[in-house]
Amino acid sequence: MACLEKGRLEAFAFCPERRDMIQYDVLTIGNAIVDIIARTDNAFLEEQGIPKGSMTLIDTTRAQSLYNAMGPAVEMSGGSAANTAAGVVSLGGTAGYIGKVCDDQLGAIFTHDIRALGIAFQTAPLSTGPATARSMILVTPDGERSMNTYLGACVELSPDDIDEELVAAAKVTYFEGYLWDPPLAKDAIRKAASIAHANGRDVAITLSDSYCVYRYRAEFLDLMRSSAVDIVFANEAEVLALYETKNFDAALTQLAADVRKFGAVTRGEKGCVVVEGKTRIDVPATEVSTVVDTTGAGDLFAAGFLRGYTGGLSKKVSAQLGVVAAGQIIAQIGPRFAGSIRDTADVSKLLGVSSHL
Amino acid sequence: MACLEKGRLEAFAFCPERRDMIQYDVLTIGNAIVDIIARTDNAFLEEQGIPKGSMTLIDTTRAQSLYNAMGPAVEMSGGSAANTAAGVVSLGGTAGYIGKVCDDQLGAIFTHDIRALGIAFQTAPLSTGPATARSMILVTPDGERSMNTYLGACVELSPDDIDEELVAAAKVTYFEGYLWDPPLAKDAIRKAASIAHANGRDVAITLSDSYCVYRYRAEFLDLMRSSAVDIVFANEAEVLALYETKNFDAALTQLAADVRKFGAVTRGEKGCVVVEGKTRIDVPATEVSTVVDTTGAGDLFAAGFLRGYTGGLSKKVSAQLGVVAAGQIIAQIGPRFAGSIRDTADVSKLLGVSSHL
Repeated sequence: MACLEKGRLEAFAFCPERRDMIQYDVLTIGNAIVDIIARTDNAFLEEQGIPKGSMTLIDTTRAQSLYNAMGPAVEMSGGSAANTAAGVVSLGGTAGYIGKVCDDQLGAIFTHDIRALGIAFQTAPLSTGPATARSMILVTPDGERSMNTYLGACVELSPDDIDEELVAAAKVTYFEGYLWDPPLAKDAIRKAASIAHANGRDVAITLSDSYCVYRYRAEFLDLMRSSAVDIVFANEAEVLALYETKNFDAALTQLAADVRKFGAVTRGEKGCVVVEGKTRIDVPATEVSTVVDTTGAGDLFAAGFLRGYTGGLSKKVSAQLGVVAAGQIIAQIGPRFAGSIRDTADVSKLLGVSSHL
Repeated sequence: MACLEKGRLEAFAFCPERRDMIQYDVLTIGNAIVDIIARTDNAFLEEQGIPKGSMTLIDTTRAQSLYNAMGPAVEMSGGSAANTAAGVVSLGGTAGYIGKVCDDQLGAIFTHDIRALGIAFQTAPLSTGPATARSMILVTPDGERSMNTYLGACVELSPDDIDEELVAAAKVTYFEGYLWDPPLAKDAIRKAASIAHANGRDVAITLSDSYCVYRYRAEFLDLMRSSAVDIVFANEAEVLALYETKNFDAALTQLAADVRKFGAVTRGEKGCVVVEGKTRIDVPATEVSTVVDTTGAGDLFAAGFLRGYTGGLSKKVSAQLGVVAAGQIIAQIGPRFAGSIRDTADVSKLLGVSSHL
C-alpha cells in the first residue's frame, strides 16, 4: 500500500499519444486540502476566537493547539477548486486539477479521491518539506462552517506545476482567490491564464472569501481589468468587499464593467445573479429542507454553473444548475457528493434544456 | 502541528497522583484502525472477490490494488473495540482503550479522535515499522458493509502494552476476537484478563466475525471454558460458527454452559438474546427506518449493553440499551456518533430505569 505508506506516490500513468484527443470541460487550480470536519457550538468558536463563516489561515502551532482542543472529526478530501472539479464530474462533466500535496498519508488520500473521480491530476507531490494541507472545519448547529487552514505543501505551488497541455485542453481554467495566500501560486495563475488565452479558452476566478478579498483586493481588480480573467465567481459579501461598498447593486454594476465576460454572484437564500454588460439575470435559490453543513456551497455553485456553461447551456440555465448543486451539497456533510448527481431530477431536467440565453 | 506531521506523537499527559481515584466503566482492547469508507455496488464486490458482510485481512499489495480500484472515500477513526469505547462515552459512560498505532498522520487522527472523546488512551505508538492500520469499508446500497483490513502497526501490540493500572481501574475489560489475528495480542489479552480477575473485574470478549471464529474456534472456546473470559458478545452467525451447528437454540444452550457469567447474542432484525445459566432473555430490535451503513452495529450493541451493565442496570435493560445504540448507528454513515446520544429519548428513558433483572 505504498500510496498510503510513507513512501512516494506512484507516478500517474499517462498516455501521451491519447492526450491530443482529450478535452476537459474545466481545469481547476487551487490549494489541495484534506478537510478535518467536526461539529461544534458557537461557544467553542468564541472561546477559540474563530471568525464564524470564514477561512482563517493558521500556522503549525495554532493548528496543533486547535486540533487538540476540538472534538472528534471526520476526514475527507476538500480544497475549494478541487471540490469544484469534483462537482463538475458529479454533474457528468470532465475535469482536471492542479494543486500541491506532500507524498504523505493525507496526500495519498487527496490524490486517490480526486483520481477515483476520473479527474486528471498529475501535479508532482512534494517529497520533502511541509505536510499536505488540512483545514479544520468547524460546523455549528446552524450548518455554518468556519475553516481553519494550515497551507502546508500548498505554499510550494509554482509556475513549474502548470501543465501547458492540460490548460490548453480545458474549455475553462478556473482558480481560487485563495491562491494569493501562498507565495508563488499567483505567478502560476498568470502563466495558466496566458496559456488558456493563447488557446482561445476562458479563465475564471472565484474570489473565495471576503477576508481573502480584503487581503488581495487590488490584485483581484487588476486581474479583471487587465483581462487576465474573463469570468468572476463570488458571493455577495465578496463583491461588496471588492468594491468597498454596502450597496449591492452598485457593486454589481462595477463588477459588470470590470469583468471581460461576466460575473456570477451567489446570495445564499436569495439565489444568485449573473451580470454581463447591461444584462442582469436573477435566479432564485432552491428550497433546502435542512441546512446540514454549508461547506462547499460556493464551490458547487461554480461547478454547476461551469458544467452548464461548458456544455453550451445558457447562463440562466447554468446558474440554475449552480443553484441546484449548491442546494444539494449543503443538505449533507462535506463538500463532495458520494456519487453522481447527474441523474437527480433537478439536474437532469436542467441538463436536458437546450435553449440558450 | 507535530501530531499531524511526520514527527512523534506527543506523550499523553497523565497525572499519576490522580490515577488511584479514577475508575472506568469499560476498558476496551483492539486493533486501532482508521476506516476508509466508500459507497459501492454489489458488482464491485464480486469483481474484487470480496466476501460481503465480513472482514477480510489484506496485505500491502492487495491494499494498494483495492484502494486504486475503489471510489472516493471518507476517513474516520474506527476499530471494533475502539468504536465500543466511543459508544460507551456517547452514552454517558467512561472508557479507556488500548491499541497500537504508528506515529504517522493516520495514527495522529486515531489518537486525536479517541482522546477528544475523553477516552483514556496511552498505548505507545510505533515510531518505526508498519503504518497505522486502515480498513477499506465498502458499503453497498442495502447498507451492508464489507471490510478489508490492513493490520499495519496493530501486529506489534504485545503484553508490554497492557497498562496494569488501567485494567485494574475498569469495571469490565472488553476485547476483540480480531486480536487473535496479530501474533502477540493474544498474550496481551491473557495478561489483561489475569489482571482484571485479580482485581475482581469482569472480562468480556466479542467474537468479532464468523470467519474470525472459524480461524480461532478452539482458542475462543478455551478462553470461555478456562474462565479467562466471563462475558461473550456475538452475533447469530458467530455463535453458530463457534458450535459448528445450524441450530441456534442448541448453540445458545452450549454458550450458556461454556461461559462463566453470560452471553449476549445479536440477531439483526430479530433483536438479541441474553443467556445466563438456564435463563434466556429475548429483546426485540428497534425499528430503523433506513439502514444507511451497518458499520459498527455490533460494536454499539456491546457499548450500550456495557454502559447499562456497568451502570448497575439489569441485563434486560442493558440489552435494550444495546439494541437502541445499534439501531441508531446503522441509520448513519460510520461507526461512531458525532456527539452524545445520552439524551436521546430512547436512551435516557432506559438509563433512567432502575429495576434490575
